[in-house]
Amino acid sequence: MAIIVQKFGGSSVKDADHLRNVAGIITEAYDKGNSIVVVVSAQGDTTDDLIEKAAELNERPSKREMDVLLSAGEQISMALLAMTIEKMGYPVISLTGWQAGVKTTSKHGSAGIKNIDTERILEELDKHKIVIVAGFQGISKYDNITTLGRGGSDTSAVAIAAALKAELCQIYTDVDGVYTADPRIVKNAHKLDEISFDEMLELATLGAQVLQNRSVEIAKKYNVNLEVVSSLTKAKGTKVVEVTKMEKMLIKGVTKDTSIARISVVGVADVPGIAFRIFDLLGRKDINVDIILQSIGREGTKDMTFTVSAADADYAAEALHESELLKDKKILVDKDVAKVSIVGAGMETHAGVASRMFEALYDAGINIQMISTSEIKISVLIAKNDADRAVIAIHDKFEL
Amino acid sequence: MAIIVQKFGGSSVKDADHLRNVAGIITEAYDKGNSIVVVVSAQGDTTDDLIEKAAELNERPSKREMDVLLSAGEQISMALLAMTIEKMGYPVISLTGWQAGVKTTSKHGSAGIKNIDTERILEELDKHKIVIVAGFQGISKYDNITTLGRGGSDTSAVAIAAALKAELCQIYTDVDGVYTADPRIVKNAHKLDEISFDEMLELATLGAQVLQNRSVEIAKKYNVNLEVVSSLTKAKGTKVVEVTKMEKMLIKGVTKDTSIARISVVGVADVPGIAFRIFDLLGRKDINVDIILQSIGREGTKDMTFTVSAADADYAAEALHESELLKDKKILVDKDVAKVSIVGAGMETHAGVASRMFEALYDAGINIQMISTSEIKISVLIAKNDADRAVIAIHDKFEL
Repeated sequence: MAIIVQKFGGSSVKDADHLRNVAGIITEAYDKGNSIVVVVSAQGDTTDDLIEKAAELNERPSKREMDVLLSAGEQISMALLAMTIEKMGYPVISLTGWQAGVKTTSKHGSAGIKNIDTERILEELDKHKIVIVAGFQGISKYDNITTLGRGGSDTSAVAIAAALKAELCQIYTDVDGVYTADPRIVKNAHKLDEISFDEMLELATLGAQVLQNRSVEIAKKYNVNLEVVSSLTKAKGTKVVEVTKMEKMLIKGVTKDTSIARISVVGVADVPGIAFRIFDLLGRKDINVDIILQSIGREGTKDMTFTVSAADADYAAEALHESELLKDKKILVDKDVAKVSIVGAGMETHAGVASRMFEALYDAGINIQMISTSEIKISVLIAKNDADRAVIAIHDKFEL
Repeated sequence: MAIIVQKFGGSSVKDADHLRNVAGIITEAYDKGNSIVVVVSAQGDTTDDLIEKAAELNERPSKREMDVLLSAGEQISMALLAMTIEKMGYPVISLTGWQAGVKTTSKHGSAGIKNIDTERILEELDKHKIVIVAGFQGISKYDNITTLGRGGSDTSAVAIAAALKAELCQIYTDVDGVYTADPRIVKNAHKLDEISFDEMLELATLGAQVLQNRSVEIAKKYNVNLEVVSSLTKAKGTKVVEVTKMEKMLIKGVTKDTSIARISVVGVADVPGIAFRIFDLLGRKDINVDIILQSIGREGTKDMTFTVSAADADYAAEALHESELLKDKKILVDKDVAKVSIVGAGMETHAGVASRMFEALYDAGINIQMISTSEIKISVLIAKNDADRAVIAIHDKFEL
């Protein structure tokens, strides 16, 4: 019997009507003779509500207790979904992260999945039950509850699909696939039938909120048969595949990411090892750095500029200030920035892609602060206010 | 170092202000050099809200999934309380039922505690942490989440105190002790300094909502040093002790229980074994029967009348209807009833206690439907509408 993993996000289970709709999708797949494992997120705004409750009591709670708090969200939604399916007369059981054997690292708030002990899930599937697993959560070797970070339910779903060698992993969302740009920003954005793992990875990393990037990495590594589909329409979704078929289109999509910040360290000594020491320091604090720019400053000094996620910005600046090396240096933090990127395989073999992107921005009067390129993407850092206009201008320029 | 177990109910942790108040009580006891284990219920109306959400989807969800759902409530409150204590700069950790080693039977919805594996709690106490444990919940041998039934957090607290051989188990409530009657009904009700386990047990069983009866049973069995105290005032609470000192007062309190129902089976054959078969049937369905009354019916038949908890009433009636023995019998269910009781040790050696109680009801014009007595209590079943008047009349009669 084929195992299908279906993942439903918070907006797909936000209330009784949505839960009934999702229960319909699940039982339809079950009726076709498949073994169904469902991965579910917390309902709608539950996570935000819980974060708000915590903030009222402690503006910087420990990440361990935050994980205890937030993991209750999926526990509620999985139980409610199970009850909805029970009501339809189907055999079903819900499992928390620890019950489902999701073993993670001990890094609270953004734990990585180490392995999935599938014994309990397989036992329940053998009893012909629909198995609902709480997404986003797991358990560390110390028996503490961990969470995988925002969007971690995608990662849970793909990791479970990989561990079960599932035939298919379906990510249900409120959009019906992967688009060339956010349809809420770009009106003539259109849906892709297929996208490669690498392209999806760049899109995810660059802020397209369809799939969490770690989930795509795992899907690529274990070659999970992945698709993004709508929980609201019967429209065909987007398949994420190893290599896409011959493509007319070079550029797969335009994305923006507004949850980043730019940090500048001004006037550090122009001697070897400075860059290493700055980024080693940040690395040890678990702060991921994205675009890096080093420029010549005045009188034998240089300026280091880089981007981090907005959530890490103050923490990063604080860590730099506290270091012996930089304690007397000026450290600037700018959160009014956005990263806009284009993604497409084979981009590096096509001359002129970058210049067309820059031309689009020039025509729209948008200033570029930083540039970063890879084999399959080009990113620019611009003012946050310009982000939507930039996405539209680029999308138009490439006639996506 | 002395271990103190402190239990806080839902109303004591209902919002940020109450959580801060409770955190103050906990850290004060910790500052005195005690090892503190806190047992906490779900916040305020959380449990009722979750039950309502479930009812919208399935009017009869499985008890297993209901336990998954409801146990999220304590997980939220324990994390929030931990964060509040962190904010005050104290070392603290929260543990769910399964993390704290609370092993229960598999009877979802009203599981019994089998044993508590205290290893993790002791490990955290050794690290000088304040340990917060989710009340009301545990784990079955099949690794499923169970709950102990309403009010089960008291039971959690006393069982943990017994397992840890704690010096003291404090049950914090929004009243400041055990009263001779519900102070909201009887204005001149007064607080008892001491009450015996047996008297407390009768009061709890009879509907005084201060302590859950199973918690008192465990406290009695393991001789746990138990006290009921206020989380809002510094007033002295009520100690629950093995044997109370010489008492002037015979009657310890008047209680009412309105969450019961009366079931009558009319016209069963007047032959041996009928009562056994009815109550054996209910026993196998896990329905507890309280007062039983058997009366002579017409023409060689008899009527059996008994009380069950209101929540079990329809289920009980259905089970009786479905039995071969009673399928053509008339089965009446009346939920508009209340049980009013007086409790006091040595009652059976004092003549006239029952008649004074009945006189009080007669004077108030209240009709008695059923009567039940034990060594230390007398209960009457009356119309629900009369319950508060009955409590006041009896309290006045005995000049409590």
